[in-house]
Amino acid sequence: MNAQNDSLRHHCGVAGFFNQEGENIPERLFYSLFSLQHRGQESAGIAYKKDGHLVVYKDLGMVSGVLSRYLAEQRVSTVGIGHVRYSTRGGNRLENAQPILVSCNKGEIALAHNGNLSNARELRSLLESEGSIFQSSSDSEIILHLLARSRQTLFYDALKETLGLLRGAFSMILIHNATLYTVRDPSGFRPLFIGFKGTTVAVASETCALEVHGIQDSREVQPGELITTDHEGTRAELFNREGTPGRCVFELIYFARPDSRIFNQSVHLTRKKTGAALARCDNVTADIVVPVPDSGSNAALGYAEASGIPMEYGLTRNHYVGRSFIMPNTSERELAVRMKLHPVKEAIKGKRIVLIDDSLVRGTTSKILVKLLKEAGAREVHLRLCAPEIKWPCYFGIDIPTRKELISNTMTPEEIARFIGADSLMFLPLEELKGCLDDPGGYCYACFNGQYPVPVETE
Amino acid sequence: MNAQNDSLRHHCGVAGFFNQEGENIPERLFYSLFSLQHRGQESAGIAYKKDGHLVVYKDLGMVSGVLSRYLAEQRVSTVGIGHVRYSTRGGNRLENAQPILVSCNKGEIALAHNGNLSNARELRSLLESEGSIFQSSSDSEIILHLLARSRQTLFYDALKETLGLLRGAFSMILIHNATLYTVRDPSGFRPLFIGFKGTTVAVASETCALEVHGIQDSREVQPGELITTDHEGTRAELFNREGTPGRCVFELIYFARPDSRIFNQSVHLTRKKTGAALARCDNVTADIVVPVPDSGSNAALGYAEASGIPMEYGLTRNHYVGRSFIMPNTSERELAVRMKLHPVKEAIKGKRIVLIDDSLVRGTTSKILVKLLKEAGAREVHLRLCAPEIKWPCYFGIDIPTRKELISNTMTPEEIARFIGADSLMFLPLEELKGCLDDPGGYCYACFNGQYPVPVETE
Amino acid sequence: MNAQNDSLRHHCGVAGFFNQEGENIPERLFYSLFSLQHRGQESAGIAYKKDGHLVVYKDLGMVSGVLSRYLAEQRVSTVGIGHVRYSTRGGNRLENAQPILVSCNKGEIALAHNGNLSNARELRSLLESEGSIFQSSSDSEIILHLLARSRQTLFYDALKETLGLLRGAFSMILIHNATLYTVRDPSGFRPLFIGFKGTTVAVASETCALEVHGIQDSREVQPGELITTDHEGTRAELFNREGTPGRCVFELIYFARPDSRIFNQSVHLTRKKTGAALARCDNVTADIVVPVPDSGSNAALGYAEASGIPMEYGLTRNHYVGRSFIMPNTSERELAVRMKLHPVKEAIKGKRIVLIDDSLVRGTTSKILVKLLKEAGAREVHLRLCAPEIKWPCYFGIDIPTRKELISNTMTPEEIARFIGADSLMFLPLEELKGCLDDPGGYCYACFNGQYPVPVETE
Amino acid sequence: MNAQNDSLRHHCGVAGFFNQEGENIPERLFYSLFSLQHRGQESAGIAYKKDGHLVVYKDLGMVSGVLSRYLAEQRVSTVGIGHVRYSTRGGNRLENAQPILVSCNKGEIALAHNGNLSNARELRSLLESEGSIFQSSSDSEIILHLLARSRQTLFYDALKETLGLLRGAFSMILIHNATLYTVRDPSGFRPLFIGFKGTTVAVASETCALEVHGIQDSREVQPGELITTDHEGTRAELFNREGTPGRCVFELIYFARPDSRIFNQSVHLTRKKTGAALARCDNVTADIVVPVPDSGSNAALGYAEASGIPMEYGLTRNHYVGRSFIMPNTSERELAVRMKLHPVKEAIKGKRIVLIDDSLVRGTTSKILVKLLKEAGAREVHLRLCAPEIKWPCYFGIDIPTRKELISNTMTPEEIARFIGADSLMFLPLEELKGCLDDPGGYCYACFNGQYPVPVETE
Repeated sequence: MNAQNDSLRHHCGVAGFFNQEGENIPERLFYSLFSLQHRGQESAGIAYKKDGHLVVYKDLGMVSGVLSRYLAEQRVSTVGIGHVRYSTRGGNRLENAQPILVSCNKGEIALAHNGNLSNARELRSLLESEGSIFQSSSDSEIILHLLARSRQTLFYDALKETLGLLRGAFSMILIHNATLYTVRDPSGFRPLFIGFKGTTVAVASETCALEVHGIQDSREVQPGELITTDHEGTRAELFNREGTPGRCVFELIYFARPDSRIFNQSVHLTRKKTGAALARCDNVTADIVVPVPDSGSNAALGYAEASGIPMEYGLTRNHYVGRSFIMPNTSERELAVRMKLHPVKEAIKGKRIVLIDDSLVRGTTSKILVKLLKEAGAREVHLRLCAPEIKWPCYFGIDIPTRKELISNTMTPEEIARFIGADSLMFLPLEELKGCLDDPGGYCYACFNGQYPVPVETE
Repeated sequence: MNAQNDSLRHHCGVAGFFNQEGENIPERLFYSLFSLQHRGQESAGIAYKKDGHLVVYKDLGMVSGVLSRYLAEQRVSTVGIGHVRYSTRGGNRLENAQPILVSCNKGEIALAHNGNLSNARELRSLLESEGSIFQSSSDSEIILHLLARSRQTLFYDALKETLGLLRGAFSMILIHNATLYTVRDPSGFRPLFIGFKGTTVAVASETCALEVHGIQDSREVQPGELITTDHEGTRAELFNREGTPGRCVFELIYFARPDSRIFNQSVHLTRKKTGAALARCDNVTADIVVPVPDSGSNAALGYAEASGIPMEYGLTRNHYVGRSFIMPNTSERELAVRMKLHPVKEAIKGKRIVLIDDSLVRGTTSKILVKLLKEAGAREVHLRLCAPEIKWPCYFGIDIPTRKELISNTMTPEEIARFIGADSLMFLPLEELKGCLDDPGGYCYACFNGQYPVPVETE
Repeated sequence: MNAQNDSLRHHCGVAGFFNQEGENIPERLFYSLFSLQHRGQESAGIAYKKDGHLVVYKDLGMVSGVLSRYLAEQRVSTVGIGHVRYSTRGGNRLENAQPILVSCNKGEIALAHNGNLSNARELRSLLESEGSIFQSSSDSEIILHLLARSRQTLFYDALKETLGLLRGAFSMILIHNATLYTVRDPSGFRPLFIGFKGTTVAVASETCALEVHGIQDSREVQPGELITTDHEGTRAELFNREGTPGRCVFELIYFARPDSRIFNQSVHLTRKKTGAALARCDNVTADIVVPVPDSGSNAALGYAEASGIPMEYGLTRNHYVGRSFIMPNTSERELAVRMKLHPVKEAIKGKRIVLIDDSLVRGTTSKILVKLLKEAGAREVHLRLCAPEIKWPCYFGIDIPTRKELISNTMTPEEIARFIGADSLMFLPLEELKGCLDDPGGYCYACFNGQYPVPVETE
Repeated sequence: MNAQNDSLRHHCGVAGFFNQEGENIPERLFYSLFSLQHRGQESAGIAYKKDGHLVVYKDLGMVSGVLSRYLAEQRVSTVGIGHVRYSTRGGNRLENAQPILVSCNKGEIALAHNGNLSNARELRSLLESEGSIFQSSSDSEIILHLLARSRQTLFYDALKETLGLLRGAFSMILIHNATLYTVRDPSGFRPLFIGFKGTTVAVASETCALEVHGIQDSREVQPGELITTDHEGTRAELFNREGTPGRCVFELIYFARPDSRIFNQSVHLTRKKTGAALARCDNVTADIVVPVPDSGSNAALGYAEASGIPMEYGLTRNHYVGRSFIMPNTSERELAVRMKLHPVKEAIKGKRIVLIDDSLVRGTTSKILVKLLKEAGAREVHLRLCAPEIKWPCYFGIDIPTRKELISNTMTPEEIARFIGADSLMFLPLEELKGCLDDPGGYCYACFNGQYPVPVETE
């Protein structure tokens, strides 16, 4: 489920560093953002304290291309934040790249934000009516306007006042003066971690961005928590204890890196569990379990173990096909898939295959994959998805197609199987998915069941 | 007077097009901005109406590099504006590139602005106190905030209200909805022209940017004038009839292109007149008149004619040395000058030279030039400047060094002559400069005499 | 076994197309070379017939970056060849990029060559003594000199004469006039395939580069075979029937893409077999089998199946770390490995691990991997290599470090285990490796046993 | 005479440095090549001794873009050469960029060559028949083949033997071992200078490339001279005393930089003389003399002085229009000229103009210029060319269009005047041109009179 235009896409990853004694903050941010590259590949940026002022460097492109040059020389600093981003609908505009750096009556503020506000339209409309101007289409600019307009004298009070106005998803990091502020919304939609090593305090969307620096001592930022890090140390406060839990279950199913641990669960092990759960619901007769690499790999391991059907690498993936690769002269989806995923003929010829993927969006990629497998000699292809049927849009930072485009809104599983040419098709039931989670009450399942943890602005 | 760090620098040039019937607006802007390249070489950008919305493309770099790619395909539009820019102190940041495009309660607004507000600090401070955020260090963002905050319902009224708050220099062009607004401040510091050809209405900082399109029917936008161009035609109004005249005399002396006609005067002929005026005040005995190319070329022609001393090209210029050329491994000014200006030994050997340049800032380049000429065999070098002594900073859009750095604030002409090694040195007296102007009462001479036409915020 | 400086590296991949009726040959080559990107990532190039002449486009960089722009427009042609390349010792020079295009008394010739000549020094020395000049350090230029110097009147005869002088590895493709020539050396060191679809004849190093175009009807070019393709069709001849068989076993173990079928064997299945063979020789007690991704992935599957020990993804790989990624400010190998391979703590904590990789060169990467796994909680790490000990250099196109740098030349397996911190270590015995091959007599095992199929020029 | 496609174009400029004590040779070459940029703007390159070997860096583009990066670090060397180049017919191919570096039986040789061999086809044909291969279409590769094939044991002898075989134009510089060889053909078609300062020996196409380093002590390399520079010093020998003199008079008329002194004449003063000579032949009644900048500037000064008609800058040039500027979306010549040359209306309105340019090729640019001037109000335009009618192609390094395209081969001066819309037109008679030269017998006038100093290979 990962070819062009047929995937769920994340909006962002964030990272931040504070070290009272000073260190090469841009380099720290570089390695953390590089580890979060899977969360956003269209723009990258850093902001940090330099010679008494905040500076920002950002551009369209991947971390390596955009930020390498800023690492050529040592730049000692005490505090910095960084961001990677996917574009939303409406194109990949530089104006939307983050961090955003502004100056206002509170002084200079830099912001890096992961998530979407669910009351963005209301807030923006209010701010515009009071005379605010917007230079981007990102929700994040709203937050800075609210901060600037707050009549609170202390930045900390203004920040708390602002947080009280925000609804939806916001795992975010700010710099004001020499202080680092770390915030997670009361529902905890997006993951966010804080870690410590020596005098370094590090914040990041996933643990993998801390572990690349050897930072093992880390904890999840709590939903509704506001953490302040400055020369006096790190202090935490719950600014809102009443959020409806809303951790994004798709972070576990698809987005996060398998070696990360988020929401107190190992991503890899959770995916294995979904595969095993799927196997337990299933009674298909098959010769081999074949994962769609890489999105179905971890779950397939669990399915194979639980079902006793041996795993086989029946599809290989060409990792040179990245998002940055635009295939010239072709809008043909089939060639796009063919360049990326390759059947291993000798391994699948004559075999009955259980094909494991994470989820189904439009179904177009799966249709081509089934075709490739059958052409390569597969006798049967049984598609198994480690998530329930996706039927509802996300308002909290995942770029899900419109309801009409979601295949599960227009076809039954049987119809889908016929459409994509599979011999059978099964989704993981929602209750089974919940069974794979330690704290099933703590999650948002809105894309499956339409029950949004917080009110949303429907169109 | 044009080697690195020893020159006056302009901030901007602007251009705009409106054609009710639609045409390739980006291409129009490209050629006009290319013709204004001498007014700003560090960033370039265009904003235009596309599919019902305003879009903006801008980047650091020269017009050709930044904008060529947007011309590959036909883009029919009815209205667009463009901008070229030098960076001010504080570095060449993308955030400061123009046009600026914002959305606010008035809808989408795009702005391209040439000039500096002389009450920028006051306005910014006021706006910040009311909660505005600033993403750049340019004055132009202030104007957009004021527009957004105006309680006037009609954009036109909001614009007039805003113009009433601005002090200083603002030749600017805006797009709101499908309408093009052209504004020049009441003192008329910076030039601005409007021209007509068929259904095309064109606006630009200098006539050369109109003539490249064969637009001959043009007039100067009046100081204090606000011109509205939409599907009903073009209407002009004087929003302020009481401005103290303040045309920038340096536009004629140095900035504008010689083939432009600004402030109702031919730039080339005015420069010739200053050279002739200088010659009339002078009684030096010399063999040849040598211009410093290109800044002294036009004036030298006038000096030679008036004095009867023959002109000689004793210095040639390497036009491959542009602003984009960063000489590697050297901070040495002498090499910088040597790469750019070359004595023609055979032409100057044994000669007594009248060396003509436009003005003197720090004097460092002139010192090297005199040295090069003498090394090449010049018997005497008499430096003549076609402007009075520069002693005061500019608050209206010219990047003049601080008072201390201006050589005329620390030395008498005789001392300067000794410092730079010239056998004599003469500035054009202010009264003589005025004599070269048709309307001497209409100009700002503040950089010479400290008399600013409007109040300024001194540091 | 794939972090920087601790890997075997391939030199090249080649592709060629002929279609009497004309088609977009550059686009064909683009997709084939993209599929061969794993065989060479430092330069890419194509040569094809255009308007009656051969043209060549090549540059340093990956296929996508170097060749995309040549696909913007339709370019119908009848014949073309392409090449991807790693640099050898001595740096990555553009001069060494291929195809090479020359003109000589035979007319224009374009050449793309995979492999190294084992009598290169002798031939080059001879040619230089007769007055030849060399503009690159590649062996391939030698072949073109020999062709030009041949006194044979017919190109075909000159080519056969030249082939008679070459020793070592040469899978190569040439264009002369409008004819495509495909050649494989008598030992068959490097793979080479020819396929047919409609009027298209395609040649490539691996089947995956044919299958991306849906070309299923293909066969291996035979060792010692010379195939001519022109408007009269395709004709094959064995120019040398007496070559000592020398297929490179490392193509199967490590280089080729898992979905390719080379030397009449499925790459993926062969790797599974080596894993299974290893398991059969092994009697270690362990909890999980962990592959080093991606080099050990296929074999691990075989090991797990044969041993009954469950496979677990204990290491994940960051695929954004490509060869093009130069880590700024660090020469530290550990950070390089840490950026690329990540332990999945929850999966390996307290576990006894069988770690599967393909082979061992210097051992430096394995040492870091074992450290990372133990830090992440692994109780025991037993390293298993699916190849015998590498002790000898390759003269046929694989970039193996010097004998001294090969860890197996300086330590016993027990010493290596201690050096890298593994609890035990085992290589696949050579006889077992042979058991995984359908035709064990057809291969070169020189890097393991020093028995070169053809004489070599030792230093 | 300098808009696209309507100009004579040079092929090359060369530079070389030797310093037994070592210095930053790449930086030296950079500044010299930058000063020679007017001689070639399509590729640039340097070769120098580094760590005991010759290395070469070259690419398509201007000096600043191609070579800046090689100056970031100090690179001490004892010897190096450089080259700038225009492409000839057949496109701008990287393969043709120089210096060329080869290895052969004489060792490593690097070559930078300015000029065209007039027996290139014969030599190439001979070499090909003996088995040589050519990787470029440049004549220069021929020279290296001849060197390699020479049976002389000593390089110096091989070089002399090779020089004996060459006909036509070759100002060239070679490195072999640690020695710098400087050669000029017996006719002396192209200029070449050698200069000395301290332990530095410098060679360059024009004196301006020496003077940028402050090297004043220089002399012309003699026609037929071979100069050897090594650790024992600099030694000169005349390898051929019998060349028919053939200095290219167009170097003085158009190509060389005005501040250069070549062929023992000041370029600037010679151009003034041609203008003066033209004035003496002329009896036109006019108000002003207007140069076409920059090609007619120097001559116009001479014309104005001699005629007593005042010079006026009636045309200004936009120096941002360089060769690198490709105007998007237009093949329209008029827009190209309009972007580059601008009439100064106020200066020419109602005036009778003598328009001075250097020479006439196709006449297309002049036609547009006359139109622009008349549109701007000129009463009369009398075109004067400071060179005779160009009627013959050049075989020695100037890219002159074919005979049919040369307007002087199809029209009389009167017809040309009518064609371009001028009120009258005059060429400088050949005898008058000769009168401007100190040594008129020493020049090649073949493009005017068809009398080639050496036999040529006509097509």
